[in-house]
Amino acid sequence: MAGSEETLKWIAEEYYDLNGSHFDTLNSIPSPLEFSKLVRIARPVLIKDCPVPKAQARWTDEYLTERCGDQRISVACTPNGRADAITRGPDGRLYFAEPHVEQMTMGDFLGKLSSNESSPESEVLYLQSQDGNLYSSNPGVPSEFQALLTDVPDQLPFASEALGNPPDAVNLWIGDSRSVTSIHSDPYENIYSVIRGSKTFTVFPPTEAWCMEERIYPHASYHRFDDQLELIPSEEDAPPVRWSSILDPTDSTALAPEAHPIHITVTAGDSLYLPAGWWHYVRQTEVTVAVNYWYDMESRGSGWVWLNLLRGGASESGPPPGNEEDELVDGADSDDDGDE
Amino acid sequence: MAGSEETLKWIAEEYYDLNGSHFDTLNSIPSPLEFSKLVRIARPVLIKDCPVPKAQARWTDEYLTERCGDQRISVACTPNGRADAITRGPDGRLYFAEPHVEQMTMGDFLGKLSSNESSPESEVLYLQSQDGNLYSSNPGVPSEFQALLTDVPDQLPFASEALGNPPDAVNLWIGDSRSVTSIHSDPYENIYSVIRGSKTFTVFPPTEAWCMEERIYPHASYHRFDDQLELIPSEEDAPPVRWSSILDPTDSTALAPEAHPIHITVTAGDSLYLPAGWWHYVRQTEVTVAVNYWYDMESRGSGWVWLNLLRGGASESGPPPGNEEDELVDGADSDDDGDE
Ligand SMILES: O=C(O)CCC(=O)C(=O)O
Ligand SMILES: O=C(O)CCC(=O)C(=O)O
Repeated sequence: MAGSEETLKWIAEEYYDLNGSHFDTLNSIPSPLEFSKLVRIARPVLIKDCPVPKAQARWTDEYLTERCGDQRISVACTPNGRADAITRGPDGRLYFAEPHVEQMTMGDFLGKLSSNESSPESEVLYLQSQDGNLYSSNPGVPSEFQALLTDVPDQLPFASEALGNPPDAVNLWIGDSRSVTSIHSDPYENIYSVIRGSKTFTVFPPTEAWCMEERIYPHASYHRFDDQLELIPSEEDAPPVRWSSILDPTDSTALAPEAHPIHITVTAGDSLYLPAGWWHYVRQTEVTVAVNYWYDMESRGSGWVWLNLLRGGASESGPPPGNEEDELVDGADSDDDGDE
Repeated sequence: MAGSEETLKWIAEEYYDLNGSHFDTLNSIPSPLEFSKLVRIARPVLIKDCPVPKAQARWTDEYLTERCGDQRISVACTPNGRADAITRGPDGRLYFAEPHVEQMTMGDFLGKLSSNESSPESEVLYLQSQDGNLYSSNPGVPSEFQALLTDVPDQLPFASEALGNPPDAVNLWIGDSRSVTSIHSDPYENIYSVIRGSKTFTVFPPTEAWCMEERIYPHASYHRFDDQLELIPSEEDAPPVRWSSILDPTDSTALAPEAHPIHITVTAGDSLYLPAGWWHYVRQTEVTVAVNYWYDMESRGSGWVWLNLLRGGASESGPPPGNEEDELVDGADSDDDGDE
């Protein structure tokens, strides 16, 4: 493990020496060839003036409410705005906590969103179903947002042409300042377009995966009892979840000094290209509406091996053993559980 | 070192599991976007019917002789066809041996090439100056092949557009069956076009760098004395050369069992795209004329870090020390010097 940790640190340092914290800003949509080059370089790119045009022009609360009508939509509910995040359970242990998901109309959701934001005691709602809730490559499940699809193209031609495929999933996200998406990485090329409000991404290159302190956490979910949300550990046989132990990567004291966060704010009308494997933590300061496109990352070549290596794959699969107690963290003996 | 070697072996195995020994064959010149994707995947591609048109149509011995006239050209001379290769010196030590370079006319060169090929005792000549002998990004040195430049474009538009730059060097190569290019890798995206004859490349992915047994060899050059070529060690202050210890990678007994050679034969009119960092060993079975385009590899992103890692960079720069005697090989105590 030690040798391999040395290697991961060496990689992160060399990568940072070459690339720094730079990210490019484009002033218009790239051509497929330009985008292909950007994917090759695999650094984040802020694309100014790259709107989802119809959504941009139309998506007021009134319009969304009216279009979606009686259709019930899935909304994540948590007491603290941290859906899919490491959370201390009532028993003092740390869990990977999934939100309670509730069905409601768009009108109800938007109404609660604006009234709850100012009352700190209230539940936090986040429309973040992220299963291709607008368009999915997995057919069969009809979108809860059928009425909005005419406002959102099912793909971005520059990206589909560059990558050789349509997106795997297109998602709608609507949340307010109390929702946070905990730090994680996805095996997708992500193009994230903000329609209203603004999002701030705190991102780290895949080479800094070792700073993310991924550990294996038991699974739990919020359930509603008597109008209260309670975090309930899942059955013993629920697979545990590998997740970062860094609760707030914007707090530099929570990070190894070798970690180099990059903060990128994406405002309405702009898009962010976030390459596959980049770690991201996402916040908003006001009610924010966004649409993102997840494209499968290239499976040929060395991309997968690189990302697996950086997440410690080489040391997991081989000897030496003996750090199992390090992998399964619980609240009792963990010293990296931080504070929420 | 051990931990790091484990890591390198893990990487090589994962990469091979995903990619096998596959290489694509295209039947026509790729578009810039297609080529950009191929560079992203970074696997070799044989491009059939991708000629350097004028050279293809005209370059007989007579034409080359006539065009080049009295112009003196630089030709590599060795007793054994191994220019720039690990060679045992008269003192029994192993050296990185550079050829003797002689100036002659194209007519003389081609005449000797065809008469020498059948007489095994004679010297081996190889036009392989590879310093951008046709076109170089380093201006000032005029090409020895000025008279041939109208037959060779100074760049390949599909590649220049995909990579965002003209080539760094364009080289002419003319040799016969007795010349071999020893196994090495270059930090260039290489497009290698065969005009006459055929070349067989034996290639390995960058992930198999650890199988190449790179060591640091003292430098030597051939010099002519009384019509004989002798290998003379360079002055003490000549920098030693890091080079693969594998003399013949087509001999499977010379290789670690984890190495997976891919053999690709490129015949007249075809081109090979060989991605930066791929190891290659090159032979021909008859007089073969070729032109290649070297494009700088991308310096942003993780490409450099990846290639350096695979060549053992992580273990060199960090602790542990103590393998210095392993790095400087000489004939006396080396057991991996093989046979020539
Ligand atoms: O917008 C968010 O809250 C999170 C977005 C995200 O994680 C993603 O697009 O992968
Ligand atoms: O053609 C040859 O002999 C060697 C070619 C080569 O090494 C290259 O193109 O990098």
